[in-house]
Order: sequence, then C-alpha cells, then structure tokens
Amino acid sequence: MIPRYSRPEMVAIWSPETKFRIWFEIEAHACDALAELGVIPASAAKTIWEKGGAATFDVARIDEIEAVTKHDVIAFLTHLAEFVGPDARFIHQGMTSSDVLDTCLSVQLARATDILLDDLDRLLAALKKRAFEHKDTVTIGRSHGIHAEPTTFGVKLAQAYAEFSRCRERLVHAREEIATCAISGAVGTFANIDPRIEEHVAEKLGLKPEPVSTQVIPRDRHAMYFATLGVIASSVERLAIEIRHLQRTEVLEAEEYFAPGQKGSSAMPHKRNPVLTENLTGLARMVRAFAMPAMENVALWHERDISHSSVERMIGPDATITLDFALSRLTGVIEKLLVYPDNMLKNMNKFRGLIHSQRVLLALTQAGVSREDAYRLVQRNAMKVWEHGADFLEELLADKEVTAALSEAEIREKFDLGYHTKHVDTIFRRVFGEA
Amino acid sequence: MIPRYSRPEMVAIWSPETKFRIWFEIEAHACDALAELGVIPASAAKTIWEKGGAATFDVARIDEIEAVTKHDVIAFLTHLAEFVGPDARFIHQGMTSSDVLDTCLSVQLARATDILLDDLDRLLAALKKRAFEHKDTVTIGRSHGIHAEPTTFGVKLAQAYAEFSRCRERLVHAREEIATCAISGAVGTFANIDPRIEEHVAEKLGLKPEPVSTQVIPRDRHAMYFATLGVIASSVERLAIEIRHLQRTEVLEAEEYFAPGQKGSSAMPHKRNPVLTENLTGLARMVRAFAMPAMENVALWHERDISHSSVERMIGPDATITLDFALSRLTGVIEKLLVYPDNMLKNMNKFRGLIHSQRVLLALTQAGVSREDAYRLVQRNAMKVWEHGADFLEELLADKEVTAALSEAEIREKFDLGYHTKHVDTIFRRVFGEA
Amino acid sequence: MIPRYSRPEMVAIWSPETKFRIWFEIEAHACDALAELGVIPASAAKTIWEKGGAATFDVARIDEIEAVTKHDVIAFLTHLAEFVGPDARFIHQGMTSSDVLDTCLSVQLARATDILLDDLDRLLAALKKRAFEHKDTVTIGRSHGIHAEPTTFGVKLAQAYAEFSRCRERLVHAREEIATCAISGAVGTFANIDPRIEEHVAEKLGLKPEPVSTQVIPRDRHAMYFATLGVIASSVERLAIEIRHLQRTEVLEAEEYFAPGQKGSSAMPHKRNPVLTENLTGLARMVRAFAMPAMENVALWHERDISHSSVERMIGPDATITLDFALSRLTGVIEKLLVYPDNMLKNMNKFRGLIHSQRVLLALTQAGVSREDAYRLVQRNAMKVWEHGADFLEELLADKEVTAALSEAEIREKFDLGYHTKHVDTIFRRVFGEA
Amino acid sequence: MIPRYSRPEMVAIWSPETKFRIWFEIEAHACDALAELGVIPASAAKTIWEKGGAATFDVARIDEIEAVTKHDVIAFLTHLAEFVGPDARFIHQGMTSSDVLDTCLSVQLARATDILLDDLDRLLAALKKRAFEHKDTVTIGRSHGIHAEPTTFGVKLAQAYAEFSRCRERLVHAREEIATCAISGAVGTFANIDPRIEEHVAEKLGLKPEPVSTQVIPRDRHAMYFATLGVIASSVERLAIEIRHLQRTEVLEAEEYFAPGQKGSSAMPHKRNPVLTENLTGLARMVRAFAMPAMENVALWHERDISHSSVERMIGPDATITLDFALSRLTGVIEKLLVYPDNMLKNMNKFRGLIHSQRVLLALTQAGVSREDAYRLVQRNAMKVWEHGADFLEELLADKEVTAALSEAEIREKFDLGYHTKHVDTIFRRVFGEA
Repeated sequence: MIPRYSRPEMVAIWSPETKFRIWFEIEAHACDALAELGVIPASAAKTIWEKGGAATFDVARIDEIEAVTKHDVIAFLTHLAEFVGPDARFIHQGMTSSDVLDTCLSVQLARATDILLDDLDRLLAALKKRAFEHKDTVTIGRSHGIHAEPTTFGVKLAQAYAEFSRCRERLVHAREEIATCAISGAVGTFANIDPRIEEHVAEKLGLKPEPVSTQVIPRDRHAMYFATLGVIASSVERLAIEIRHLQRTEVLEAEEYFAPGQKGSSAMPHKRNPVLTENLTGLARMVRAFAMPAMENVALWHERDISHSSVERMIGPDATITLDFALSRLTGVIEKLLVYPDNMLKNMNKFRGLIHSQRVLLALTQAGVSREDAYRLVQRNAMKVWEHGADFLEELLADKEVTAALSEAEIREKFDLGYHTKHVDTIFRRVFGEA
Repeated sequence: MIPRYSRPEMVAIWSPETKFRIWFEIEAHACDALAELGVIPASAAKTIWEKGGAATFDVARIDEIEAVTKHDVIAFLTHLAEFVGPDARFIHQGMTSSDVLDTCLSVQLARATDILLDDLDRLLAALKKRAFEHKDTVTIGRSHGIHAEPTTFGVKLAQAYAEFSRCRERLVHAREEIATCAISGAVGTFANIDPRIEEHVAEKLGLKPEPVSTQVIPRDRHAMYFATLGVIASSVERLAIEIRHLQRTEVLEAEEYFAPGQKGSSAMPHKRNPVLTENLTGLARMVRAFAMPAMENVALWHERDISHSSVERMIGPDATITLDFALSRLTGVIEKLLVYPDNMLKNMNKFRGLIHSQRVLLALTQAGVSREDAYRLVQRNAMKVWEHGADFLEELLADKEVTAALSEAEIREKFDLGYHTKHVDTIFRRVFGEA
Repeated sequence: MIPRYSRPEMVAIWSPETKFRIWFEIEAHACDALAELGVIPASAAKTIWEKGGAATFDVARIDEIEAVTKHDVIAFLTHLAEFVGPDARFIHQGMTSSDVLDTCLSVQLARATDILLDDLDRLLAALKKRAFEHKDTVTIGRSHGIHAEPTTFGVKLAQAYAEFSRCRERLVHAREEIATCAISGAVGTFANIDPRIEEHVAEKLGLKPEPVSTQVIPRDRHAMYFATLGVIASSVERLAIEIRHLQRTEVLEAEEYFAPGQKGSSAMPHKRNPVLTENLTGLARMVRAFAMPAMENVALWHERDISHSSVERMIGPDATITLDFALSRLTGVIEKLLVYPDNMLKNMNKFRGLIHSQRVLLALTQAGVSREDAYRLVQRNAMKVWEHGADFLEELLADKEVTAALSEAEIREKFDLGYHTKHVDTIFRRVFGEA
Repeated sequence: MIPRYSRPEMVAIWSPETKFRIWFEIEAHACDALAELGVIPASAAKTIWEKGGAATFDVARIDEIEAVTKHDVIAFLTHLAEFVGPDARFIHQGMTSSDVLDTCLSVQLARATDILLDDLDRLLAALKKRAFEHKDTVTIGRSHGIHAEPTTFGVKLAQAYAEFSRCRERLVHAREEIATCAISGAVGTFANIDPRIEEHVAEKLGLKPEPVSTQVIPRDRHAMYFATLGVIASSVERLAIEIRHLQRTEVLEAEEYFAPGQKGSSAMPHKRNPVLTENLTGLARMVRAFAMPAMENVALWHERDISHSSVERMIGPDATITLDFALSRLTGVIEKLLVYPDNMLKNMNKFRGLIHSQRVLLALTQAGVSREDAYRLVQRNAMKVWEHGADFLEELLADKEVTAALSEAEIREKFDLGYHTKHVDTIFRRVFGEA
C-alpha cells in the first residue's frame, strides 16, 4: 500500500485500530454466547463489553508486548486485560488465535468488498450516463487496430458497462466466498468450544459459519476472492487501454480531462498525456499479480500452517486498496472524459468508402456472384483505395465486372451509415434493459 | 497437452475433427435462421445440413487451403463448399470468423466443463465414502506440522469434501461465464446479420446470446473461467500434499495404493513413493499458471485483436485436459488410499499426554488460576515431556501448584480422547447433511 | 506444443527418439568410465556402444513395458537389454533414474538454447540491417502515445537491437545455468558410483559436473532458465506491440508484409491486419507464464521429489518451442517489414511546429526568462496549436513576450529537424560499434 | 512494504528523503558537466551544489506543490529553487523527468542490491559454518519424503550453500542489468543535452550510460532484475521448507531456536512451531509474484509510457525490502538452528537395514545374478521389513537364493554406513574449495 494510490476509507479497514476493534468484538460476542451457555458468568460478558467497548487500544503498547511474547493475539489479550480487569480470564475460552484472526480477516474483506461494490456502482453509473450520451455518436470500429466497420461510441461504453456488470456479479460471489466465521478451537474440532458460539458470533458479524475450519478458514476461499479481484483489474486495464488508444495524437477521439495548472511534461509544455489510464494499466498488473500467491496459499500443511499469513498481510490491504483506488480513478476518467465526435468522423472517413466493403461483398454474392469472385472483385478495388488513396465508390462504379452484377443505385445504397447503427437500440436494451 | 497426462474424452473435445464439426453446426444453424428470415433460400439451408452433415471433413485438406489463404475459417468454408456445391455461397452470410471461432470455443469449454463437473462428482463421491469409513478413526491434528490436538481422519476428508463442493459450485459459475454465443458480424453491430440469427444459434447450442460482443466474446469471461480452474487446481494440490505428508516414512498414516509389479525406484527396491500425488502437485502448478495469460488476454485493443488466440489455442486444451486428468487421478488415489489407523494412534501417542495440554490449561483457568499462571504451569510440565520424554499426566500429578487447583480425578478426566471427537457428528451434518 | 507454433528442428529435440538416444549415450559413456575404473568389463562397454548404438529404439515397445513397471527408465533399460544381451546387466550400475533424466534434460535444454541463440543472431542481423537502412528516416518520437520530439526509425530499431543483445547475453548465462551433469547415485552421495564417472560423462556431453546434486540437479537452475526465457519473450512482446501501433490505420508508418493471396478478414476484404505481431503478443504471454511454475519447482522436498517432473514435461518443450517460433516469426516480420517514411513525415507534421516546443522553452530560459515564465509562454502558444490548429511558429512570432526575449531568427532556428538527429551517430556507435 | 517484514537500512533507500537527495545529486552532477561544456555558468553549478547540498528537502512541501502541478519532478525542482535562488533556472537544462526518475531508480536498486549481496554473504557464512560443523553428522537422505540412503546433514547444508552461491552470482548479474544511467532528454535523442553529460553523471554515480534510452531506461533490465529476485526467493523457500519438514513432530531432526518467553500457541502451551520458516515460505511467494508485473512492464508503448511507474513504486520497495528481510531471517534461523543428531540416527534406523538395499542389489548383479532377478530378490526381502518390521540383514541371510550368490561376510559388509559418506570430502571440496 502506498499513499499515492490509496483512499482513506479503504485504508481505515486495514489499520491496526480497526483490526483490534474487530478482534475485541469477536471475543466479546463469543463471551456473550459462552455466558448464554453457562460456561462463563453473564456478569463477565457484560463487563467485557463495557470496559473493552470503552477502551482505546494502544497499538504501540500491543507491539511492545508482542515483542516479548512473539504472538500477536496473546499480546492483544494481555492489553485487553489491562482494561477489563480480572474478568479478562473468561475471554478467549477454548478459542485459538486463528479463530480471531481468520474471522477478523473475513470481516475486513467483507467490508472492503462493500466499498468495491460501491465503486463498481459508481463506475457503472458513469458508464451508463456517457453511453446514453453517445449512443448515436458514430465512430469507426477497429479490429487489429485497423478500421473495420462503423459502430457508435455509446456501444463501446455499453460493452464496458456489460463487462463491469459481470465484474459486479463476480464480486458478489467473491464476497460470499470469504464471508465466513470460524470459532472452532484447536484443529477445528470444537472440542473446547461449543459450535453454538460460532453460530452466535457469525450471526452478529453478518457471516456464515465455516462448515469445517480445521482451525483456519480454508484458503481456497481467499484464492477465489483474490483471483476475482485480478479479473476485475484486468477489465480496468481493458478500458484504460481503450482510452489510451483513443487519446493517441493521430487518433484523438477522446481524452482524459486536463486540469488547469496541470503540466504534462517537464520538457514539452504542449503534452497532454493519458497518465491516469497509463497508471491504471500498471495498477491492474499489480492486482492481477496478487492472485498467484493467493492460489499458492491454498495448500496449507495438514490442519494449518502459517505460511499464508505474511502473504495476506500484504495482499489483503494491497489488493483491495489498489483496486478501490483504480476503480475510483477510472470512474473519474469516464465521468470527465473529453469526447471528440468530429475527430471520430474525420478518422472514419480517412479511407473514404472502404469501410463499406463488406456490404458490397454481400450484395455481390446475393446477386449471384460466387463468394470467391465477389471477394476478388471487392479486394481489387479496395486495394486501390488503400494503396493509392482512390475513392472506393468511384472505383466500384468504374469496374465493369461489378456493375455487371449491381446497378449504380444498388451500389450507392451500400454506402449508408445508418445501416450500421440500426441495431444499437437492440444492444442497449440487452445491456441496460432500455434504449 | 501431452498424452501422459491426458484422457481421451477430454482430448476429443479439442481435436480438429470436433472443432470443424462444431463450426459446421454453427454455420448450418445460422443458415436455418437466415432461411427462416428469408435472407437465403430454405432449400439451401436444407442442402447444407444434408451434404455438410454427411461430410467427413479432411483436416489435411483444410490445412492445405489455409497454407494459401492464411485464414482458417475461409479455408474451412472453401472445403465445406467442396461438399455442399453451389448452395455454399449462402453460408456465413454477414458473419465474421470470430462469430464461428468464439462460439465454437464456448461450446468446447462448456463440454469440457461438463466433464470436469463429472470428475468433481466422482471425486466428491470417493471423498464422502472414505470420510464416512473413517469418521471415527482418531488421528492427531497438526498445526505447523506439529502435533496439536486429536481429530479424526474422517474430518480431514470431510474438509476436502467441503472444499471440492465449493470448487464444484465455482465451476458451475465458471461454466455460465463462458457459455455464450456471438453471431453479431463485423465489430458486433449486427449490421449485416439480424440478432435473431444469434438467438437461434445460441438456443440450438445451449448457450446464451452475448449482450455486446464487438465481434469477439469479451475475454473477461475466459479470464474468470481459467482463474477458476486455477483455484480448483490449488485445491487438488492441497489434498495431494496432505497425502504426501501422510506417506512420509516417519508418519506413514496413509499411502497411495502400490500396484503389484510397480517399481518405486530403479536403485532402491524397497521404495514406495507417493508419485501420483507428487505428480498432482506439479500439474496443479501448471493449471494455476494458465490463469495469468488468460487475465492478460482481457485487454484486447478496441473492438478486437487476435492476441488472445494463440494463448487460447494452448491453454484451452492444456488447462482442461490437465485438470481433468488431475481430478481423475486424485479420485483414484482417494478411492484406493491405504489408511493405517494403527500408525495414526502410534504417532499420536509419541509424546504421551501432551496433546491434552490445552484441556488442562482451560481447567486451571476455570478453577480460578489466572490465564498467565495457568499457561506457565502447563508449559513447564509440557516442556519436560517435550525435552526429556516424561509423561505429561504424571508430571502434572506431581506438580503441587497444579494439584492445588485441580484434583487427581479432575486432571485424569482431561485425558479422555472422546472429548475431542464429540462434535464430529456436527461437522459431518454440516458438510454432508447427515452424520 | 501445438504444430501451428512449432518448428521442426526444435520439436525434434523433444521427441521420444531423441530422448532415448540421449539416455543411451549417458548410460554408454558411464559404462566407458566404469570400465576404465575396472568396475565393469571393458568388453561389456564396447558391446553396449556397438549394439545400443546400432539399435533403433521402439517407443511403443518402451511405453508397453512402462505400462507394467510404471517407471520410464526401467522400461527403457529393459528394452535396451533386448538389443545388448547379457552385458546389459552392467548398464546403470550405481546410478539412479534421475542421473539419466536430469542429465538428459540438461542436454536437451542446452541444445534448445543453441537454437534460440541462433534465432537471436538472425533477429539481431535483421534488426541491424533495417536499422542502418533507416538510420536517417525521421519519425516522431512518442511518449504516452503522444507526439513528443523527432527521432529516427533507425534509432527505434537500434533500441530493439540493444535490447535483444542483452537478451542474448542473458541466454548465454541461462545456458550455463542448466548445462550441468549429475551422475551421483541415490541422494547424490556417490556412494555407489565414483565421482569420476560423472566427470567423464559431463565432459563427453559438453556439460559441467553439478557440485552437489542430491540425486537431482537443483531446480533453481531451471527456474533461472525459464525466467530468462520469460524476459526474452517480454522483449518480443515489446517489439511486436511497437509494430502493431505503427500499423494502426491512423498511423500506418510501417506494416507487416502482406502476401499475395493472403486474406485479412473473411468479411472485410480491405483489411490488412498485423496478425503476426498480435500472435507474438499472445505467445509472449505464454512463455512468460511458464516462469511461475518453474520457480515453484525449486522447493523440492528434502533430497528430491518428483513434483517438478510434470511441469518440465510441459514447459521444457512448450517454452523453448514457442520462443523459437516467436523469435523466428519476429525475424521474418522485421526482415520484410514495409516502412512508410512519407507517412512518418506526414504524421510528424500533424501539429506543425509543436514538436519544437521544448527547444523554444530552453531558448527562452537561456535568454534569461525564468523557467516558470518560459513554461507559461510556451504552453499558451502550444495550446493554440493543439486546440485550434494554429501554426506554432507564427503564434510565437506574434507573441510579444516571446519576441521580447528572442529575435525572429533565433526563433526560426529552433525549428530545424537536423537538431534532433545530430546524435544518431553517437547512439549507433554505442549500439553497433559503428555508425 | 509493512514494518513487520522490513529492516531499516533497506527501508531508508526507498524513503522520500533518500529519493530527493539522489534527484538532487543527479541534477547537480549534470550541472557540473553542463558548466564544463559551457552551457551554464560554472558559478551556477557551484551555487547549486552549495545551496542544494545544504538544504533539507521538505517532503510535505513537495507534495503540496505536486498537488497543483500533478508532476513530481517539477514539484521537486520548484522546491529546490526555493533554496538555490535565481541560479535554479540552470538546473534540469535539456533533461526530462525520466532522466531523473530512471537514473534515481537505478541508484536505489543498485544500493538495495548491495544490501542483498551482504545478506547473501552472511547467509553463506552461516551455511558454511553449520555445514562444516555437521559435515559428518549422518542422516537419512529422503526422496519423495521416503527414506532412501544415508547422507550427512553437512551435505544438505553444502547443497544450500552451493544454491545460494549461485543466487549471489545471479544477483551480481542482476545488479549490472540495472546499474545504468540515462540523461538523454526527450525521447532519448540527446537533442537538447550532450551525451557527455550522461557520461559524467553515470561515472559519478557508479553507473554505466544506457546505450539507447528513448527517454526511459528499457524495462527488460528491470524485468530481469525482479525475475532474479524471484528465483532467489524460491531458493529461500526451498531451505525454509526443508527446515519445516525437519521440525515436524515425527521427524524432529532440527528445530528453529525457541526463545525464552516465546509462546507457540495461545491455546497449546507445548507447541514449538517453525513459524519463522513458514513465514519465509509466504514471503517467498510474494517476492516471486512481483516478477510477473515486472515482465509485463517491458512492453512500453513507443518511446515510453508511464504504466511501469505504479508497478515499480510498489515492487521496487516491496521486493527488495521483503527479500532483505527474508534473507536476514533465514540467516538467523540457520545460525541458531537446533540440530538433533540422535534423532537423525533414530529415524534412519526406523526400518533397520532397509537403506542398504541398493548395495545388496548391486552386489548380487556383480556376483552374476541378472538385474531382474537381483531386483526381485532384494524386493521380496525388503517387503518383509517394510510390512512386518523384519530385520533386513537377517532376512537376506535366511534367503537361500541370496546366499547362493553372496557369502555372509559379503552380505554383512554391505551394511557399513561409512560406505555412504566416503565422498563427502569430494562434495565439500567442490562446494567450498576445502573439506
């Protein structure tokens, strides 16, 4: 996590203060359930909530204790006891550190996901707004970076909307994956702690009980979670690269908003660079990279080992903070994106008429020309446009083999732009449920 | 794909013959819909089904044509025309190669997934059978590779069952991700092909129409698919490593089945090595690795580029074939796994009594000893067992500070194994719905 | 490995025939050394070379035997004995399978590397030729996809040359990493085989003896090897993406050679797509992905486990075959690349004069204007060009604050293209040792 | 970077203070060279060194300026001007931000590498010391986790020494990769800055001039650098996993040092867990993961884009800090490792005599028994030991087919442990140059 690519709300989830507060709540909820079962006195549970609830945990003090015990949960419990007093001995009965740590991680990841879901909602709203705004803004569709046939800028954005809608759905699944609670004691047998404690804590924290936890929550859940973030980051990368392409000097069909006072280059004052989307490209690489160690974390030894922990201390914050920042930055880019419809038309007409080649090809075959001959006819005229700047329509009208199959009116009719946009409404209805 | 790690049913999905057959079906279904809309003659669609349906496509011939055209779909269509005759000119009207290629990939991945789902079902059945068989087979639970507290071998397998049940659910989601159909023509605008064609083909092939396809099906779907396979492979790795651990010479609590005639080592005839599960560990690394290029594939340029294609030609077959093989091999390992309950008991009792330390700790705190003091009392006796081979129960009974808090009967009661297995039924009910 | 992306010479290295031939040579060389030390009869070694050397190993027969023994080296030795007769009992004395397998892999990787080095040499030659051809072909340099200042197309290619020269050096290092020989017997102690055997076999095969092999050659060597291939693949990707950019419709400064008869699109006959370099982008993703499992292979358990083997059976061929193909394809692309200097000039002049902004900035500061003021002056005129298509030179000459600091002659002098290319010779001398 | 896994010396390299100090030095050295060439006044260069050298840069102030300019180098230069006064206008003449940023990154990575090289030296020293200490400590060698033949604990450590020696060599290469300097101005043509400036700055900073920098130092260098760190991390993982295995309850041949006051488990006071090496396993996963985005960074667009930057802001510090911490932690583990030779012997003798099976096999073949028969004879006796706990020597002596080929004395001679360690000196000489 580096401040430059972080937003405070997400950072707060991963602060030591938040972590200790969640640890406290897990312990205190467990005490309630233990009291309910008669394992510990009800008065103790009450005291724990009161004194612990009012306490401000001292991170430095906990670190100090940990330096001696080399165990973070014991350090926390020792510090907690300083507030709670003698009743502290009823805390953590039958539990292991993992019960606290893993359930806390679930809470943190669930909260982080809620922010990411909000981020996606805002991104989707921005995409929808701009998509409808440019629903009919004709632009050239490109395959292989080469002009193909016309589409609209709105359709481009509708595609992104559909893609991020899928990402949202995946994230909802991913949240379910990690929103589980384990309070099952050593090696997860519940020998020292009744399963009803886990059920109570889970319910209070909005989690589901983990069916078999073997002391730790199984890491296939987290692997799936971080892999999902990696896929979402890859979609961020796709849209970012689209914008970088559109902002190229030779294309300039769209541009990141350029703030007054901003300097594009220390050397070349005229530069307006797509630095936000370039930055997003790099951030996507990072979030994606975190999927790999998360998958390697799955194969813990026997009931548990702690190799996953150092990985999660890093990627837990880094993946969620970076993706949150990236989604938010991307939303800003989309909201303020400068769009240049005139340039879109100018670019599209660079090879006048050539984009209509397929229509002519189809018309020829429908007029009875064999596919191979039609292809040859279209290509020989297309090549004149491509190589010598000729006008496609004129060349076709001058080609006797073409006019033998199609009348001039039939040929001219193939050069109508509306032909290409006639199903934009269909696409919008599929994506947005409205057009 | 290498034969050693392949099974024929999955390999067949990726054969050129299967691919061309699916291409044919996509084209022929599209012709039906085109005929229905009156774009092409109904008789042509009929002829195409009849002559193409009866044809045996000649892979070598198609390769030969492709060597000239440098375009695989055109090569196929040329070959198809050799069977169909003049009506062949009605095939592929308004479509692009990607319509055929991407929809075919969807069909192949969907079929591959159906095999993988069967694989998982068989694995789950094997795990369930062995889990119930060993529901009460007591074994030591280990954290950090160190003896912790007792559990049962059935619980270990129940954990694996729960994990692979989640994998199954993920795979169902992943199948939905990739089971879409795109017949949308150049840059996906439907300019040259009515959306109803896509709907018809999709329905016939058991797919959903892709909402916005921009000529290609967006690759975030495939990224999610291969990432999911990577997570499943990581679960395979986890169980494989568990077995490798259990088969270690010093542990020997379980063992891969050793066939008569099998040779463990060219040099050391006594060796019985967990070579199947070691092999699975390596295969898991491969399947996991394929997630990365799949994620990099998402950011295609503009409406489409073809950079994804070479990746998918490799990982499409390799990831599904390898995972199919791995799941099948793992199922065999589990079905035939040799389990040694006697060794489990012998290992568990290596440090006699030490596994009961936590119960004593709890009893002491419940008897009013502070947590810190209880910890100290237990640890000082535990260390004698650990370092000098003492008997934990005897040491406790001889420790005056301990006996000041607990009676001999109370201490002895803490050494009951049944205490640890009392919630196995709960766990089984959670996992299997029965116990 | 798939035929489409394979070249026969590299494929041959990984054929079963080649593998068994290398196995035979390792065994036969070892027999020579064993005979020299008097461990086995000299006549036996002679017979083994004669009969084994003349034998054509039957891959299907070996597979058949392996189906029973489940051990590949034993299967091979059994088959070899069918040719050699009774003296076969002297083969493999004191050796383990790994001695044969790992040394064979070293031979295969070393041979594969020699092909890759040749590939790089051919690529470097092509780059050098085209670099000198276009040493003075002025083109716009771009940062962030935005026009920056002029450079030459030769400098672009010189950069690629320098990059692939580094790749060549890295590959030489990588070859040294894996060119080692292990004939050290069980767990690598040489208990059953004298170290002099290893020295002899190593020398005969052009390898170095592995200092400590613990039965297997340590896999950090292979990890480094495959990581190096991944880096080289990333350089392939860089050059491929450069060409894809240059071929974009709006840029069209260079283009992959388009063969007569080639079809760019089944639907759009005018399309000339950079499909070779797009393909290289995908192949690069694959080669890069293989670095990850190679790194995971390092941590074998104790003296050895076999988890690395399935990974290497895949990535050994796949990484080398794919990179060989990619380098060769890239060389072809560079050799035949169509370069359009006129388009380069046309593009560069799109915003006439703007590329000279920095020179003006510097001139202003050197004339005593503060950096901040100079920046402001340049930027306000640059923005008129950018936004309203003005001419930069005219705007500057009309700006009183500018002309207060610089004379018209001084300003005009800043618009000289030669200024930007004056150090091209220096760069070429650094890269090629000549200019 | 998280404090828990960081050491101050390495963290300091990546602090803003260090970065700005290096930026200053690059600019000031460039001014010296510019003054030498007469481009700027010598007095200005002197002033810049004096006032900038004495300045304490205010990170918060620079951040404040950057918030407006959105450009970090401009923000720094503005702040620097606050110290230097009017002569500040001579700073950064003809340079671009990348000249400063990339050369600074080279300095930081080179310094970081020097620390890592020291780390490796310390690790190597520890390994050597312990290797010689345990040169003759016999222990069982294991393949597949199964007992194979005897080796010594010193040989295990010698292997690790050889592996980390290779890592050291790789790191030296990797340092050369990134220790280059680029002061080449916009798109790297030296149009605005003489190449002699670069040569001067490079020399002063202990770097080499980058042959062609196209504004940025090419990222294949950094890819190779981070890939190398990934390989080293994988070697850390290997040794860490070895120790985790040796510390398993059933094995207990070695153990991480356990500090007085340390608590292994909040619940089970007897636990002594290999938490340091488990932690190293996780850290290795992270360092390895960083290789992937570093490779993706290579393919910058045209002369440069900034997508690499966010990646490097993360992995620059994270990879070097984490690897530094890991190497240092591993060194501590090795230095203080508790080794239990008695347990090694006890484990080795678990299946008494079985480890000598290969010697008997060899003796039988040398006595004229066919390899297949010898294998069968050894295996049938070995299986009795394995399955029924028989004594291998006794079984062999009672097997008439065996005694028909070998005398009792010959058989007994095969059970000598010294046979297995006779080449330990050879191995040590190969690794350490002494034995």
